[in-house]
Amino acid sequence: MIIVIQCTDRVGLVAAISGLLAKKELNIISMHEHVDNTANLFFMRLEVDGASDINDLQYNLQSILPEGALIKVNPLPYKKIIVLVTKEYHCLADILVRNYFNTLGASVQCVIGNHTTLQDICARFDIPFYLVQANNDKTAFEENIINITKQYKYDYLVLAKFMRILSHNFVSRYPMQIINIHHSFLPAFAGASPYRQAYERGVKLIGPTAHYVTDELDEGPIIAQQIIPADHSLTVHDMVQAGKEIETAVLAKALKLVFDDRVFVYKNKTVVLE
Amino acid sequence: MIIVIQCTDRVGLVAAISGLLAKKELNIISMHEHVDNTANLFFMRLEVDGASDINDLQYNLQSILPEGALIKVNPLPYKKIIVLVTKEYHCLADILVRNYFNTLGASVQCVIGNHTTLQDICARFDIPFYLVQANNDKTAFEENIINITKQYKYDYLVLAKFMRILSHNFVSRYPMQIINIHHSFLPAFAGASPYRQAYERGVKLIGPTAHYVTDELDEGPIIAQQIIPADHSLTVHDMVQAGKEIETAVLAKALKLVFDDRVFVYKNKTVVLE
Amino acid sequence: MIIVIQCTDRVGLVAAISGLLAKKELNIISMHEHVDNTANLFFMRLEVDGASDINDLQYNLQSILPEGALIKVNPLPYKKIIVLVTKEYHCLADILVRNYFNTLGASVQCVIGNHTTLQDICARFDIPFYLVQANNDKTAFEENIINITKQYKYDYLVLAKFMRILSHNFVSRYPMQIINIHHSFLPAFAGASPYRQAYERGVKLIGPTAHYVTDELDEGPIIAQQIIPADHSLTVHDMVQAGKEIETAVLAKALKLVFDDRVFVYKNKTVVLE
Amino acid sequence: MIIVIQCTDRVGLVAAISGLLAKKELNIISMHEHVDNTANLFFMRLEVDGASDINDLQYNLQSILPEGALIKVNPLPYKKIIVLVTKEYHCLADILVRNYFNTLGASVQCVIGNHTTLQDICARFDIPFYLVQANNDKTAFEENIINITKQYKYDYLVLAKFMRILSHNFVSRYPMQIINIHHSFLPAFAGASPYRQAYERGVKLIGPTAHYVTDELDEGPIIAQQIIPADHSLTVHDMVQAGKEIETAVLAKALKLVFDDRVFVYKNKTVVLE
Repeated sequence: MIIVIQCTDRVGLVAAISGLLAKKELNIISMHEHVDNTANLFFMRLEVDGASDINDLQYNLQSILPEGALIKVNPLPYKKIIVLVTKEYHCLADILVRNYFNTLGASVQCVIGNHTTLQDICARFDIPFYLVQANNDKTAFEENIINITKQYKYDYLVLAKFMRILSHNFVSRYPMQIINIHHSFLPAFAGASPYRQAYERGVKLIGPTAHYVTDELDEGPIIAQQIIPADHSLTVHDMVQAGKEIETAVLAKALKLVFDDRVFVYKNKTVVLE
Repeated sequence: MIIVIQCTDRVGLVAAISGLLAKKELNIISMHEHVDNTANLFFMRLEVDGASDINDLQYNLQSILPEGALIKVNPLPYKKIIVLVTKEYHCLADILVRNYFNTLGASVQCVIGNHTTLQDICARFDIPFYLVQANNDKTAFEENIINITKQYKYDYLVLAKFMRILSHNFVSRYPMQIINIHHSFLPAFAGASPYRQAYERGVKLIGPTAHYVTDELDEGPIIAQQIIPADHSLTVHDMVQAGKEIETAVLAKALKLVFDDRVFVYKNKTVVLE
Repeated sequence: MIIVIQCTDRVGLVAAISGLLAKKELNIISMHEHVDNTANLFFMRLEVDGASDINDLQYNLQSILPEGALIKVNPLPYKKIIVLVTKEYHCLADILVRNYFNTLGASVQCVIGNHTTLQDICARFDIPFYLVQANNDKTAFEENIINITKQYKYDYLVLAKFMRILSHNFVSRYPMQIINIHHSFLPAFAGASPYRQAYERGVKLIGPTAHYVTDELDEGPIIAQQIIPADHSLTVHDMVQAGKEIETAVLAKALKLVFDDRVFVYKNKTVVLE
Repeated sequence: MIIVIQCTDRVGLVAAISGLLAKKELNIISMHEHVDNTANLFFMRLEVDGASDINDLQYNLQSILPEGALIKVNPLPYKKIIVLVTKEYHCLADILVRNYFNTLGASVQCVIGNHTTLQDICARFDIPFYLVQANNDKTAFEENIINITKQYKYDYLVLAKFMRILSHNFVSRYPMQIINIHHSFLPAFAGASPYRQAYERGVKLIGPTAHYVTDELDEGPIIAQQIIPADHSLTVHDMVQAGKEIETAVLAKALKLVFDDRVFVYKNKTVVLE
């Protein structure tokens, strides 16, 4: 059983929680906690072994934790996701493969693309693909996407190299539910053409950022980042190619963390309890 | 205050320990624990805030933990060390600099070398240097070292590129008190000339291992390892040079972990609670 | 046009080669060379721009280079490969996806497996899959594989987590044509269960090795290696899982290097001209 | 002998240069070149073996290369440097140690500091230390530094954690002669308190940038960058501490590259021929 807790910090929280678990004869397999002293917040993720009524445990936890505590007992092991794409295949294919072999930690409901490029690969994995063309009318474009999402149950929208900027209206419908892979180590090179920016600036490393999408472009809470070395020998095109490998890896890692309920969000930052 | 615990695992340990700390109004600043299910062992490192009698706390912890529990309350913040060297300066100089600026987490008592090469750098930092020449008589050589160590208080002997193999007799006098930096990612390339071995084998990465010294050459519990990329363009000499940087870094990291009481040893392995 | 050269070293080789190219008005786009002074060998990989008769250029190069020089002018841009698998999908799926999107740098002819697990994923990508069951008769097993390979043109056999040890008889039929991904940083943990070995030894990093297969198990020339950090918190199972990601990446990188004619083999080592 | 060349690109440069070297019976030990097609520039670094008159060789190279070519034959193996510091010791101590053991590739002439903190460590290594207090009068402060530099021969000023912003007037006196270590992966977190900025933004990696100083703050050509992982558990103070290790390593690497004449500057970028 997995238990995640986010609440105001106070002395004795660990004792109270572990005491409750001991009383219920739940054995702690792993426990990770973090305290942000500045924000006075307590975060915990537990894996426990043993039988217990979920509602009862949730109720008991609530009673010993500070008011306003967020508690999830045994969140769903398999989240549901909708994937948005444009033309690049690498992140999508990785997700489809993991989905097919049941190692994604989530279940892909459908894929929405603004080009037909990736339609066939979805068909090969029996995943519905919806073409939503991005014409000049952004509102209509987004309405189309929203209408498709309404046909499905989903926990997250994953932007797997979806190359359109989403409006405030769109983003606000899916608060902390949209995960994006941006192809630069943010906050460097936000916005368009990060590899070109990196090339122009002559940086010696490149790498992507997986983050939650908020109203501010490329300013949402960061989940995972990684870099690879770069040097003068790389053209912009080379950087784009080299970047694909690491984009795939970073998005995969971020999704795994989110789907495993290891990511806590506050103050536009994340706590990741691995 | 720092508390480290190593004992047999059983249900309720976290609750018991955190309950005791709460009762004593000690606030947990950080808590790291690990359970090895195969070995049925529990490891914990706590940083707590608040005033408490150390002996009293130690006694109370003993009473709630399984028999045979190893408990250290507030271990010394500054360990005492003796450093053994041969000719290479990089690890020693790093240790001397940190020692001088009080960032080593330990205090260097003296340096013992089997060459005079590093005598002057020790003098510049006012650290006693003892020359113990390694002639053919290994027993006498080691006796000389042992006699020098007897003149000092020390918690650890640090082999900072000390290029002599120590006998069973020597090693057994300092159980889990000798820390060595070996210049290969063990268990690859144990023994002599690891960089030459790496060169001959054509590996694509090289890097050192910091470990406790036991009777078996280069077989003791590993504390830290790291690698750097290598390729065909490196000669053995190049590897030796490139290796120095990473040897310095890995030994520094391992020492910091040990001096901070983050390293637990069992079954010829370590648990490192960072 | 790509030109690769491997020959005895002597003064003036670069001048001779670049002089010839200049005379033929071939512009050097990129040039990488390496000299192994110990072995007195010269290695070069060139990308040149301009029109030239391949046979003529090959002939001219032969005439200015030392006897016995290996010269390839414009090797095939798309190699042909046969992939051997057992049950694990991660490396195969990565290869199939790249093959499908024409970014593998090679073309997958067929897949041979000793379990049916990966049959369906091959079917989804329209790649022939052959089941060759490994019973007690190893000779018959290998004969079956050999017979299948005979039906295809191929440049390389790729062992994408093929968990059977191949005989001398088998390996000798495909000299420097078999590429394997071994799940440890060789020479550490050769042979069976490297992650278990790594776990038992308590190493602080794990990672795979892509190498050519020779008669000596896990002793062939290394093409690529990479590692990820490991620690006490990982069980053998965790290491296996974490290892999959990096195995996929290292095999992909090694294949790219080989398919791009960047890997030279000599003295059981490789020169990789990136 | 080392030869570095930077000039307009044209067909046949490699042939011309290597032909000249062959004629002079100079054996090429290593050769690295780069062509920036966008800028139409050619860069080369050669190590050659054999005897030749330097002026003669320089003259001959000039005659075969495009007008305006920058050619350095056998640049000084040991550059002269002046180091500027504030209070943090880590970069300075590393430089002093390497200087003392003759592995810096340069010779430290003196150290200039705006605090006395690092005076004693300089004295221990017999390096002159000048205290130049930064009062409100920035012009006078910089004049003092300039006057000290005038007393020495130097090739570079190294800002080894010198925490003052230098004026246009100052910087313009030392064009591409000032090397700084900035404690963020530029262009992210330029300016003051990069670790605090990194903490606030919640990035998952931190790391410094070594760069040439130009008029634009933290905007000069980047020589080397590297990162270490970061996570929620690090306070700003922790980041500062962790950063010191990597700052030392990156500055050391950048200096080595510069002192070895491997760094070429153009268009506010560097080509680094390793």
